Amino acid sequence: MATGKLLVCGLALFLTIKSNLLHSQQFTISFQRPSDCGVEQFYDISSQSCVKCGPNQSSSATGLSCECVTGFRVLATNGASITCQQCPLEKPAVTEDGYGCILCPGSLTEQGTCQCPSGSILVERDVQGNPLEEARCEVCNGAEPALSAPDSYGDRCQRCQASLINTSQSCMCGSNILAGGLCFPPNNLPTAVNPNVNYAELSLPVQSAWFSTNLYSSAAACLVYTNLTACQALGNMCVMNMHSFSSVANDACGLYNTIFRATAALGSTQDISYWRANLPWLYYGDQPGLANRVLQTEPLPTGFSFKGRNRNTDINLVAAVYNARGDFLQWEKVGGNNLQLCPDTARRQEAAYTFGTAYQETCVLSVADLLRVYAEPLFYDVFVDLSRGEDRRLLPLPTRNLNQEYNRKFINRANLNDWYLSRRVLLVDTLSGREKSLGSLPKVIRIASSIRIGFQLVPGTQKGQVFPPLLSVTYSDVVITAPNTQTVSVLFAVEYEMDQTEAHMKTDIALGVLGGVSVLYSLVKTASWKRRIGSPLIDMETVLKFLLFYAGDLANVFFFITVGTGLYWLIFYKTVQFLHKLIQQLSVDIFFIDWERPRGKANKTIQGNGIGEAKHDPSPVSIWRTYFVANEWNEIQTIRKISPTFQIMAVLFLLEVVGFSSLALRDPWSDLQRPPQSYSPPYSLTLRYGLAATLWLCIGLLQIIFFTAFHERFVEDKIRQFVDLCSISNISVLLLSHRCFGYYIHGRSVHGHADTNMEEMNINLKREAESLCGQRGLLPNTDTQTFQISITSRLRLQYDRILEPLSRRNGPSRLVDAASGHPFDQSTKAYHTMNRFLGSVIDHAHRDMEYVVRDKLFFERVIGMEFMEPMDKSIFYNDESHSFSDVLFYGNEATLLIFDTLFFCVVDLGAQSFILAGVLTYFQQMIFRLIRNGIGRRNLANKTLVDQRFLI
Amino acid sequence: MATGKLLVCGLALFLTIKSNLLHSQQFTISFQRPSDCGVEQFYDISSQSCVKCGPNQSSSATGLSCECVTGFRVLATNGASITCQQCPLEKPAVTEDGYGCILCPGSLTEQGTCQCPSGSILVERDVQGNPLEEARCEVCNGAEPALSAPDSYGDRCQRCQASLINTSQSCMCGSNILAGGLCFPPNNLPTAVNPNVNYAELSLPVQSAWFSTNLYSSAAACLVYTNLTACQALGNMCVMNMHSFSSVANDACGLYNTIFRATAALGSTQDISYWRANLPWLYYGDQPGLANRVLQTEPLPTGFSFKGRNRNTDINLVAAVYNARGDFLQWEKVGGNNLQLCPDTARRQEAAYTFGTAYQETCVLSVADLLRVYAEPLFYDVFVDLSRGEDRRLLPLPTRNLNQEYNRKFINRANLNDWYLSRRVLLVDTLSGREKSLGSLPKVIRIASSIRIGFQLVPGTQKGQVFPPLLSVTYSDVVITAPNTQTVSVLFAVEYEMDQTEAHMKTDIALGVLGGVSVLYSLVKTASWKRRIGSPLIDMETVLKFLLFYAGDLANVFFFITVGTGLYWLIFYKTVQFLHKLIQQLSVDIFFIDWERPRGKANKTIQGNGIGEAKHDPSPVSIWRTYFVANEWNEIQTIRKISPTFQIMAVLFLLEVVGFSSLALRDPWSDLQRPPQSYSPPYSLTLRYGLAATLWLCIGLLQIIFFTAFHERFVEDKIRQFVDLCSISNISVLLLSHRCFGYYIHGRSVHGHADTNMEEMNINLKREAESLCGQRGLLPNTDTQTFQISITSRLRLQYDRILEPLSRRNGPSRLVDAASGHPFDQSTKAYHTMNRFLGSVIDHAHRDMEYVVRDKLFFERVIGMEFMEPMDKSIFYNDESHSFSDVLFYGNEATLLIFDTLFFCVVDLGAQSFILAGVLTYFQQMIFRLIRNGIGRRNLANKTLVDQRFLI
Repeated sequence: MATGKLLVCGLALFLTIKSNLLHSQQFTISFQRPSDCGVEQFYDISSQSCVKCGPNQSSSATGLSCECVTGFRVLATNGASITCQQCPLEKPAVTEDGYGCILCPGSLTEQGTCQCPSGSILVERDVQGNPLEEARCEVCNGAEPALSAPDSYGDRCQRCQASLINTSQSCMCGSNILAGGLCFPPNNLPTAVNPNVNYAELSLPVQSAWFSTNLYSSAAACLVYTNLTACQALGNMCVMNMHSFSSVANDACGLYNTIFRATAALGSTQDISYWRANLPWLYYGDQPGLANRVLQTEPLPTGFSFKGRNRNTDINLVAAVYNARGDFLQWEKVGGNNLQLCPDTARRQEAAYTFGTAYQETCVLSVADLLRVYAEPLFYDVFVDLSRGEDRRLLPLPTRNLNQEYNRKFINRANLNDWYLSRRVLLVDTLSGREKSLGSLPKVIRIASSIRIGFQLVPGTQKGQVFPPLLSVTYSDVVITAPNTQTVSVLFAVEYEMDQTEAHMKTDIALGVLGGVSVLYSLVKTASWKRRIGSPLIDMETVLKFLLFYAGDLANVFFFITVGTGLYWLIFYKTVQFLHKLIQQLSVDIFFIDWERPRGKANKTIQGNGIGEAKHDPSPVSIWRTYFVANEWNEIQTIRKISPTFQIMAVLFLLEVVGFSSLALRDPWSDLQRPPQSYSPPYSLTLRYGLAATLWLCIGLLQIIFFTAFHERFVEDKIRQFVDLCSISNISVLLLSHRCFGYYIHGRSVHGHADTNMEEMNINLKREAESLCGQRGLLPNTDTQTFQISITSRLRLQYDRILEPLSRRNGPSRLVDAASGHPFDQSTKAYHTMNRFLGSVIDHAHRDMEYVVRDKLFFERVIGMEFMEPMDKSIFYNDESHSFSDVLFYGNEATLLIFDTLFFCVVDLGAQSFILAGVLTYFQQMIFRLIRNGIGRRNLANKTLVDQRFLI
Repeated sequence: MATGKLLVCGLALFLTIKSNLLHSQQFTISFQRPSDCGVEQFYDISSQSCVKCGPNQSSSATGLSCECVTGFRVLATNGASITCQQCPLEKPAVTEDGYGCILCPGSLTEQGTCQCPSGSILVERDVQGNPLEEARCEVCNGAEPALSAPDSYGDRCQRCQASLINTSQSCMCGSNILAGGLCFPPNNLPTAVNPNVNYAELSLPVQSAWFSTNLYSSAAACLVYTNLTACQALGNMCVMNMHSFSSVANDACGLYNTIFRATAALGSTQDISYWRANLPWLYYGDQPGLANRVLQTEPLPTGFSFKGRNRNTDINLVAAVYNARGDFLQWEKVGGNNLQLCPDTARRQEAAYTFGTAYQETCVLSVADLLRVYAEPLFYDVFVDLSRGEDRRLLPLPTRNLNQEYNRKFINRANLNDWYLSRRVLLVDTLSGREKSLGSLPKVIRIASSIRIGFQLVPGTQKGQVFPPLLSVTYSDVVITAPNTQTVSVLFAVEYEMDQTEAHMKTDIALGVLGGVSVLYSLVKTASWKRRIGSPLIDMETVLKFLLFYAGDLANVFFFITVGTGLYWLIFYKTVQFLHKLIQQLSVDIFFIDWERPRGKANKTIQGNGIGEAKHDPSPVSIWRTYFVANEWNEIQTIRKISPTFQIMAVLFLLEVVGFSSLALRDPWSDLQRPPQSYSPPYSLTLRYGLAATLWLCIGLLQIIFFTAFHERFVEDKIRQFVDLCSISNISVLLLSHRCFGYYIHGRSVHGHADTNMEEMNINLKREAESLCGQRGLLPNTDTQTFQISITSRLRLQYDRILEPLSRRNGPSRLVDAASGHPFDQSTKAYHTMNRFLGSVIDHAHRDMEYVVRDKLFFERVIGMEFMEPMDKSIFYNDESHSFSDVLFYGNEATLLIFDTLFFCVVDLGAQSFILAGVLTYFQQMIFRLIRNGIGRRNLANKTLVDQRFLI
């Protein structure tokens, strides 16, 4: 029977093990923690589970072992387990070591050991260690010469505390003042101190357990016993109270001040008048304007330098560190994370202490973590280490505590002259806000949520000289409600600034002078324009035009001087200038003069002018050459000297791929590629603007140089091609950009006829290539085909008169249709009339509309104005630089380039994204190109009478 | 005299103060540290400087106060300063408290206090605290029942250590084994243990002070006294030795194993066979293949989910933490920085424990910092917390220690089946490498330089099921030479992977099937091409052509199936296809047929055909219409259905400005904009490719839709315009893309004449707009102007014969010049012949070159092949979809778009920069456009005989 049962058991066990091996590969265990164990269990740290204690045992305080219950002694220990035995009635108490039983002279404690009255000690063994049958309570002798009192265990008499002996020559404080375990004789300090810490941001005073316990005793020990640690502790309490003075003199800073005044006779240390001997140095002084003098009078003896042999970019800060009890801990090199609360790699944190690197780091910290890590506040006296070799010197860092109050006012938030500079900062204070006991959770904690070290450069310095840096600290008060979910945001920054007054002044002067010059230049331009439109009156339009010119000039002035100042004005004026040019171009007058005359039967007069006697109803002259020329003109309207898309792509490539954008970071380095682990300072807007503008303009210039020097010479030159086309197609172009000013492209074929078949065209082209025919110029034996023209009002009037029926076409179309026959008839009639008229003018066939050809004077070219007014005769100025491109995008590359540059830069300033700037610039260019093309095409169709369908 | 001196002193003082106020605003102080003070100085923590001690005093151990020199007692204390008095000769020793003098029974210590022999205690006061005249030395009674020994201060007898009493029933260990302060009876463990820690990476065994002191005693206490802490301490030493077994049984893991086997009777805990009661669990077992079963058999009971109500993305890890002495410290939630050595903000560090976020953080840590922060190693038993409400369960994390050795081999670096999984990790061990004493600087430290938590997804899971994650740890051993400059790089990563076998198989099947289909399709295409070029033979060219077609089809197959697999082949084939198309386009045959006939005198036959009897040497037909049409053809060569630059800009905008690139980050979120403080996981190459390709294609499709549905209908349609232009200019276009296949645009003017003046053109246009004339179609009363043509070989031969003299032009030019008259003559003659010939073919004037017009069958359209061969008659297929654009970029938008997409994606894959990809794609497009335009223009000039100068 038993064997069978065993067999079954064994089989079951085997199956269990097997199933464990096969299936239970998951190895899950149940999750038990020490706090999950019951009173009669202990937590087995091997199996990580709760295990029952033996009989008469309960778990110890840690829960990791068992101990005998009250009244039981340990009989035997065997490793983890113990055996307990009840003490007999005659010896009911357990000895302190837990292994024996003893009879007590008095009562028993709750733990079942003997209890002695206070002031006496419990003796369980004799001096040789033999256990007594009955324990004894012995009273310590407190009088001279014994001066003894029980020690902290209550089992030995030892010499009592020095302040008791000093004050009363015994171990009793008696009628003196007992505070913080020390005994003080009567003194000047108010015994009723104010233990409140004032959280001014919250308007919440908290009665601090730390201050209650230690404020009076620290102050008294500092004053009466010159206890240096106590003095530091008092100073630290003043720092925890934000250095604030109020009318009451019994708070921490009040007591500090009382002692400061009471110890005036001791004099100051380190030659600093507000640094009293034995006391910590907390204030710079209270004279008005002191802050200004401290911060902006004398630069540091060592300058910083980024280059060369004297390269010196390290900011060496050191700090003397104290704890809340006033103990001096150590001198620490500031760096790593001792002022920087945000966790980060050492490499990035070190970047803060490289001179010239604008450093800023923010993060959000969990309050629970702060409570855990910063159980005790530390206090830092921060200095700049100026040591050079043996000469070891420190410069204290003036500190501006923005939470500092003076009579309930935040004095350090107002202007510089009212600041009270101070010393000593703390980072996280979780101590002063504990209300009931030092072990309780604090009601409020205080965090240095913003620490800024500000360097001010000596104005105009070339040697990297700086004034003493200022440490500005702002504290945040956080009421603890749910520390696990509460967070607080902190910031650490190192900043640099320089007084820019002088630079501003220089900019203003330059602006004034050049602004004046540009007024004059705009006046000249307006006068030129008045003449070109042939209007002698100064009317509203003139003034408007003047303002428009002035806007363009001002924009250029702003651009070249300021590059940064007055950016919005700059953009505004440039946009006005750009739109002005655009509108001018869109309303230009243009006409294609066709020199071709019908051949009729007169096949023999091919070389002649062909105007001759064509009475036989000649075969019509083909319009297709005009269509061709008009189509080409339509196409070159928006070509530019640069490729705008290439421009964007190249700039983006350099900035974002090659890494030029790193140059706009606020640090002194010029590496293009930064390792991703290194600290990345914020961007400087000014540098971004400067960088983008420079790159844009440089690439633009390179492109212009490439296109003018290479592409136009060796690949193709659209402008030149157009002029050639005019010549080959026997068509001249008359452009009037103003009323009486414009351009003329002489396109009369040297072969007389162009409206011919392929054979003849090829022969003509070949003849010309071999210079077998005349030259193309307007004047005989010249080559000049392009002219700027200044025409007389009379010519212009005639021109307008011919076009008059057409301008009506732009009115409401139905009226016109109804009123005057067929619009086609009118327009073709006008076309032929105009063609004949202009042809005859060019051919000097009109006596009263003569013209002369001359060169422009150098000065006329420079200021862009003609000195001679076309009174009787029109004037044709030789112009080999194809300046008719001024009515195209081509001739206005500078304006377009600067406009694009500004557009790019402004978008980037707003969005801080070069890519967005690039994309938007592309769309801007596309939209303006579409507008220019679309409206320009319609204008071309209107003015030249070429059907829009041929302008494709 | 005295007054005068005082006055002078006062004045000097005043001047000094004044000069201080005026000039010395710098407040510099000299830099002194406690270590700078001499023996007779103390460091004044108030003035932060060294101050001299009083007479008979020297600085204390901290250097912050003074104490009496040997033989002197403290007479009085007054705050910081004390007064010392020499002890008289009759009481030469100073009491322990330093305030009294006493006579000693024996000798004096170096500090001037009494010295007692070991085993006895020094008594200076009686039990009530009264000082004795002469000190006594008392021997503690070590026998039963006293069992006492001196305490650590040497001034009291107390119960001696339990192991002594257990072993010998006295306070002497006697003949037993005394180790680590404990007394052991003789036992199985080897008394000569191996205290070496083996730094295998360095092949450097170090005799560890910690092991020397604690290894035997821990092992013995664990085995003999079942001391749980000692067992843990032994286990930790095994972990510090990298879990490594060797042939010697007396190292840490050997002793652990000895005890493991010796305590087999105690059984296992927690149902895990290798977790012995009382011992820590260090190994999973030693069966081969166990690692595989543990890691890949059963998924976790809870799956992860990113969405919906069951959203569960938190990875809950907990760890039981032990210190080196074996004390259990606490259960810790893994997170924050307990496994992550790199400092970072809590927010970023938490991202590691969000399921699906590939997390990796590396940094370089200073060895000096490690020594300071990690003075004592901590040991972590890491578990996954599977708790749901009350059911609290843990799954242990199998650990792969890459430094684990088995008989001097790194077993965990080989393949999965040989791994020995283990438990318990440490982060930084600065303890075991201390050689001489525990206070010395370690010779070597060991850092967990790589910690990876790897999640393996269950294949094909939709529920986020995962196998138990694996914790892989690699330790680095660093020999300490100069801790301040030494650094060590550490890594922490959380990784995810899924078995991709199934997906690979599916891909392979799809590739195989579609690859086969594409062979067939390519065969059809080749056959069609053979017919179109009119060649019946299967020659090398045919095979080549087949391969080229096949390349294109394969590219498409790859693209649509794999999007990622075989990317390089994809690119290669696509590029081949693209170049093939480009070359095809660049060699297309084109001719402009001019229908215009000279008018001569016959002015009355305007409406007629005008071919009539023109014997009177008619005026030439103007070539300008042909120039115009050729010029337009030249311009539409590279227009596309989309704007390629817009495409790039839009993609860049979406990726980089809107932030779509965030979607390619390796985490489960789909936010476009991430706050800069949050953790940024690495990019997934596959996601980047998918994202870029999708965006590119989507924007491309949107553009195509916009251009075909809106722009071409309401703004302009360049292709339609060209066809219209042909019609207006009375010019037909014949395009032969293959030898016997091509396109025909019928451009015969419905007005008979187009070479006329503006008036007549306008009238013609108006008549047509009002439908007053015939329709434009090739057949009477039809509108169809565009055809695909399949011509007979006879026609082609004739065509080639006419062009023959021109093709010679491409030969060496001098020979030609010399041989045959004037090249111009030849080409114009050929032009006229061709014009006449083609005109007559279209006009059905050639009996033997007839053609028929028919519709293409649906199936012919689909597979792009003509079923009927043009044997006798050429076939004109109606084609209203303008498929002649196939010889332009316009008709090949799909190829171009996919090519651009691939180009963009591949550059991005290589450089991981969308901007660079965009810029390079732009340049690629620009270069191919330039090539296409340039060579296309030359081809056009060659084939149509229009001078290049007119193609502008």
